[in-house]
Amino acid sequence: MKFSKRMNHLHGSDIRAILKMTEQPGMISFAGGMPAPELFPIEEIKAASVQVLTDHGKQSLQYTTTEGFLPLREQIAQRMLAKFSVSYSPQDILITSGSQQGIELSGKLFLDDEDVVLCESPSFLGAFQAFRVYNPRFIEVPTDDQGMIMEELTRILETTDRVKLIYVIPDFQNPTGRSWSIARRKALMEIAGRYDIVVVEDNPYGELTYEGEMLPSLASFDRKGQVVFLGSFSKVLCPGFRIGWVCASPQLMEKYVVAKQAADTHTSTFCQRIVHTYMERFDLDENIEKMKDVYRNRRDLMLEIIEREFPKEVSFKKPRGGLFIWVELPTTVNAREILKKSLEKGVAFVPGGSFYPNGGHENALRLNFSNMLDEKIREGIPRLAAVIREFL
Amino acid sequence: MKFSKRMNHLHGSDIRAILKMTEQPGMISFAGGMPAPELFPIEEIKAASVQVLTDHGKQSLQYTTTEGFLPLREQIAQRMLAKFSVSYSPQDILITSGSQQGIELSGKLFLDDEDVVLCESPSFLGAFQAFRVYNPRFIEVPTDDQGMIMEELTRILETTDRVKLIYVIPDFQNPTGRSWSIARRKALMEIAGRYDIVVVEDNPYGELTYEGEMLPSLASFDRKGQVVFLGSFSKVLCPGFRIGWVCASPQLMEKYVVAKQAADTHTSTFCQRIVHTYMERFDLDENIEKMKDVYRNRRDLMLEIIEREFPKEVSFKKPRGGLFIWVELPTTVNAREILKKSLEKGVAFVPGGSFYPNGGHENALRLNFSNMLDEKIREGIPRLAAVIREFL
Repeated sequence: MKFSKRMNHLHGSDIRAILKMTEQPGMISFAGGMPAPELFPIEEIKAASVQVLTDHGKQSLQYTTTEGFLPLREQIAQRMLAKFSVSYSPQDILITSGSQQGIELSGKLFLDDEDVVLCESPSFLGAFQAFRVYNPRFIEVPTDDQGMIMEELTRILETTDRVKLIYVIPDFQNPTGRSWSIARRKALMEIAGRYDIVVVEDNPYGELTYEGEMLPSLASFDRKGQVVFLGSFSKVLCPGFRIGWVCASPQLMEKYVVAKQAADTHTSTFCQRIVHTYMERFDLDENIEKMKDVYRNRRDLMLEIIEREFPKEVSFKKPRGGLFIWVELPTTVNAREILKKSLEKGVAFVPGGSFYPNGGHENALRLNFSNMLDEKIREGIPRLAAVIREFL
Repeated sequence: MKFSKRMNHLHGSDIRAILKMTEQPGMISFAGGMPAPELFPIEEIKAASVQVLTDHGKQSLQYTTTEGFLPLREQIAQRMLAKFSVSYSPQDILITSGSQQGIELSGKLFLDDEDVVLCESPSFLGAFQAFRVYNPRFIEVPTDDQGMIMEELTRILETTDRVKLIYVIPDFQNPTGRSWSIARRKALMEIAGRYDIVVVEDNPYGELTYEGEMLPSLASFDRKGQVVFLGSFSKVLCPGFRIGWVCASPQLMEKYVVAKQAADTHTSTFCQRIVHTYMERFDLDENIEKMKDVYRNRRDLMLEIIEREFPKEVSFKKPRGGLFIWVELPTTVNAREILKKSLEKGVAFVPGGSFYPNGGHENALRLNFSNMLDEKIREGIPRLAAVIREFL
């Protein structure tokens, strides 16, 4: 029994291994990217579930089309316009099993062995995992507070063969919390258009904007049907349904549907219908506002304690949205070593090195602020600060 | 924008295209492999959903582990022993998004370009689709009423390089409805052991046995950890949750978990918990008994009308379980032509050629008997008989 070659470069996620350790009772975890479960609209979801089963029991438990439940795709099309400033028809939308599946399908559609994926440096480790199945080379594009640095991107495109896709998280990026400026968004689409390269825009956090307005999506600047937009209900409603979506132009969508069909036939009919009924009957935006209030406060509390407790050698920025604070340490320090000690003290986080597909950069850490109650933040951040101080 | 090479050999499923046509009002469809929705235990599922949200709302809507909800895996382990005569620990079980995902993950784990998959001739077209992503060659092993013919299998193994997996549906096969004899099951495992090849046992229909006892699974004869068993709740409870499972030995399971994590993180927490609570609180076996009574009657009714109405040139067997009757026509007749006419008369089925990965064999048709009420069977089969008669 011999595995395929691709299995040689596929390994479990660091985060998932850490998350398993966080199941120990009493652990304070700033590790995962989980939403706060106390904000899930459980009663409303219960009402929606009962209504779906009462009104459409047979249909909601039966097979459905690969593309997904049409009325849900209509709602998503409306939200894409209202929130992400881009017009799609329901036929341009495919329901996926979380946006992780959207990433995996993108790898399947575009990547042959040794093709090149460009991503922000650093970027989301779940995307590396999904793409690695198809054995690409990753080239990390240097970034600053405005997003990818366009001169660097252009230089790489001019000197690199076989660039097949550009993967970016333009809003409240995982792990850095940064958002791209509008100018950079426009510039990226102009460059991608010139080089005729697919841009996968992963956007699970855009609606969690704590100050000011949401910025227009990359997709809104797409004139050639090059952007594949990945959306998700995991961060704005709940992750337990595993409902995400792909928006793409018709010639790409046709292939996504074929690949999705082969992968798992379709996503849970029941979960799709619950999300649809929930949005029809209740106000998702009102729920998002509640989440934003809580997360904004947690972010501010965490930043305040970091400011007070962390040694002066660390640097960090205030993210305007999303779930994460990114902390950089002096280059002499290895965050994986800090993690070992920190876990002994009952505090978990994800070491920054995990977010660089080609390794290195071990002197950073990603802190999640959405999932822990205030008291846990008040207790955990000073404990972590004490561990960090030992390493300086 | 250029697709990966693999997308050249990936096409939508015939069945799905036909299923779309069957959405026309009034269509009598013997095409899909759908269970009868009037048998879904909707009230019990409603009670289970409410209970899950009342007792474990936060957990049921949150992320979970890639492996799946442990208490559900414990229940599956018990059922594997009770029904399929094989002992697995819950750690040997991974929850998948339907058993289609189990097939896809198997392709991912084992198949490099041009590797060989052995399958029954004919076999399940959804499996071809899933495997084709990884560009294998299919070799069809001749079968008779007892299963694969072992002399043919041995001959192929002796003369073929790069055979990486054997894909079989030993119980009430899709599309033929045939079941393997115990002697053949034992023989297959003996041969697979000698050649050290993975056997993917796809078993969605085994529990739908209408006469006599269930036969022991291939997995029950596995002494070397070579069988990957794929199970599903789609045919015995409902397909709308997309809950299936993979059973495999620890060294294989580790890789399945990594591949599943990259594919979609995990399967719906909520659906997993509903299935668990449903089985804890209600009697799944009782529900299966009800399904069996209805499906047995529909099978008998369909066979009776086929016997009476179909021309004498066709041949068919009575399946002892499952969802399908396989009808063979004289080789001069093309079932795809019959389908065109038949759809005009408002009756759908799947042409047999779809079930041969290397083409040919266009003189058969697969009829599903589980999804249509008696009156539809009484109306549809004579109409189909009339169309067939035109072609003889």
